[in-house]
Amino acid sequence: MDEAVADALCKTLPAQTMGIADLGCSSGPNTLMVVSEMVSKIYDACSQMGISLPELRVSLNDLPGNDFNYIFMSLPEFYCNLEKETGVGLDGCFISGVAGSFYGRLFPRNSLHLVYSSSSLHWLSQVPPGLCTKAGKHLNKGKIYISKTSPPSVVKAYLSQFQKDFFAFLRSRAAEMVAGGRMLLSFMGRSSPDAAAEVGTHQWELLAQALMSMALEGLIQEEKIDSFNAPYYAPSAEEVANIVEEEGSFIINHLQGFEIDWDEGSTSSDNDKDDNVVNGLENLSRGGQVAKTVRAVVETMLESQFGRDMMDELFRRYAELVDRYFSKTRAKHINLVLSVSRNTINSCY
Amino acid sequence: MDEAVADALCKTLPAQTMGIADLGCSSGPNTLMVVSEMVSKIYDACSQMGISLPELRVSLNDLPGNDFNYIFMSLPEFYCNLEKETGVGLDGCFISGVAGSFYGRLFPRNSLHLVYSSSSLHWLSQVPPGLCTKAGKHLNKGKIYISKTSPPSVVKAYLSQFQKDFFAFLRSRAAEMVAGGRMLLSFMGRSSPDAAAEVGTHQWELLAQALMSMALEGLIQEEKIDSFNAPYYAPSAEEVANIVEEEGSFIINHLQGFEIDWDEGSTSSDNDKDDNVVNGLENLSRGGQVAKTVRAVVETMLESQFGRDMMDELFRRYAELVDRYFSKTRAKHINLVLSVSRNTINSCY
Repeated sequence: MDEAVADALCKTLPAQTMGIADLGCSSGPNTLMVVSEMVSKIYDACSQMGISLPELRVSLNDLPGNDFNYIFMSLPEFYCNLEKETGVGLDGCFISGVAGSFYGRLFPRNSLHLVYSSSSLHWLSQVPPGLCTKAGKHLNKGKIYISKTSPPSVVKAYLSQFQKDFFAFLRSRAAEMVAGGRMLLSFMGRSSPDAAAEVGTHQWELLAQALMSMALEGLIQEEKIDSFNAPYYAPSAEEVANIVEEEGSFIINHLQGFEIDWDEGSTSSDNDKDDNVVNGLENLSRGGQVAKTVRAVVETMLESQFGRDMMDELFRRYAELVDRYFSKTRAKHINLVLSVSRNTINSCY
Repeated sequence: MDEAVADALCKTLPAQTMGIADLGCSSGPNTLMVVSEMVSKIYDACSQMGISLPELRVSLNDLPGNDFNYIFMSLPEFYCNLEKETGVGLDGCFISGVAGSFYGRLFPRNSLHLVYSSSSLHWLSQVPPGLCTKAGKHLNKGKIYISKTSPPSVVKAYLSQFQKDFFAFLRSRAAEMVAGGRMLLSFMGRSSPDAAAEVGTHQWELLAQALMSMALEGLIQEEKIDSFNAPYYAPSAEEVANIVEEEGSFIINHLQGFEIDWDEGSTSSDNDKDDNVVNGLENLSRGGQVAKTVRAVVETMLESQFGRDMMDELFRRYAELVDRYFSKTRAKHINLVLSVSRNTINSCY
């Protein structure tokens, strides 16, 4: 991050205006905390480089359904703290909200120096087409994401949608970023070349198990599970690298997968205790904590398919399954971190 | 408007990116309709001038409490219609939300070509200080805005706050606009040099009467009326011109007051019938329609002073008073329209 900031800063000279975007910024106390950290890093880098702070244009992006009002209502306090901490005020950091999909254009040409996205790019622009035959047969029966039992056509459909989306993402950013601009992306991935490997799929596998157990008891129609597939893909580093290379506008500075525990950030370790009290997680089992965190992210899409009144029971069963899984294994995700620079050739998109 | 658009367009050449801001954009179907009209005008002007359409950066600004979510949720449909009507799509018109007071900086330096604000600049940044003596004596007893019975110190306090605010507004925009950039402002004003003249004050006068009648019946404490003053000022064209001249960054192209009826846009003429059905105004008297429209704007500030449960009764009485006023006179406002250009000297703010 520090190196990317310093590098991106150099590209603002001599214009002294820096365009920064957080793509998939979400809405909550963390949204502006990320901005605050970025401004601090830029402030530090400027001090070290002995240059004055450029005017910062910070764009916060998410889909139109995101709660931007919450972010905007927090701005007066944010500016007050920012001024105290860095001396940067209303006339030094211009924050705006941009609602739209990052798989298409969001910003004017050559306007961004630093692009950041965390925990968003594993969400596809849509459920992959082709998971249902023309005759109406569902190919991924009893599952809601790639699974060991999924036929190869399902894996292919998912990969193909990710390739299309990630290519579109890079092509849009290529148009928007200045030559030499830096992009830092982190999202769910996997370490195995096999898309059906346990790490990367198992959270969905357990959710499908919970759904199927409810179908067995007649609480949910099995057909609804067969026809539901998550708009999600956890790529391997190689798949990501291939798309970056094919698209051609960016040079990879760094690409690495990091193992993180499922309940990292939501476990009741001493450090996190205060957070857990705030988030209402303090009296839950580890499985219960994971279920609560996952529920916050996926509930909307599940309730439109399976009904709102099924959600409590679903996530109760899910929590149990996660607890059982924790008792057998160290449940982990792979977080892919990708750092790229906009190259200077092909600057014409 | 057409001339301002064409003029501002010329200032985008050869960069071919145009910064546009709507200050005090509010939230509702009209917000994006204004954007749509502006884009159409720019599109027409480009056709006439034989130049290609610049990339449009449209910033929608209002206070942090504004419902930006509603605007953002309407964007997908807006873009769909815009593309149909003008061929301008996601990669030609970039809309963002900017939450903050336009009496301070909102945008980076030299980033705006066209600034627009409608029905907002008569709202002051705060209630003028000095309407209460150090000993705690309220100077504007029984009134909530400048009135014929207000002492000169009240008029002076209001004018002084407007001068300070409008100066700060111009100084902020001077920093943000390119040389030659155009600004179109329309807001409530008055035609008389006398700030207590009936036109410009009488809506507040009748609201104060309604409040006082409730105080007489013990429904509201009179002290609460004495201590309440609206953060509003309707300036004369001369007062506006003086501040523009004093600030020094803008040249006035046009400044004029237009008489408009109180109930223009909300009367039950044939043309407006459909609108009134939508707005629930169709079965109301003219006074009732005015009361409903005024209530939508001022209710929040009144209910925090006088209590939410007083509002129905207050606006019932207000509607009666407005009906009576209509029976005696043609009730009218003055709408000031000001068009200015950012001058090329003093471009250093």
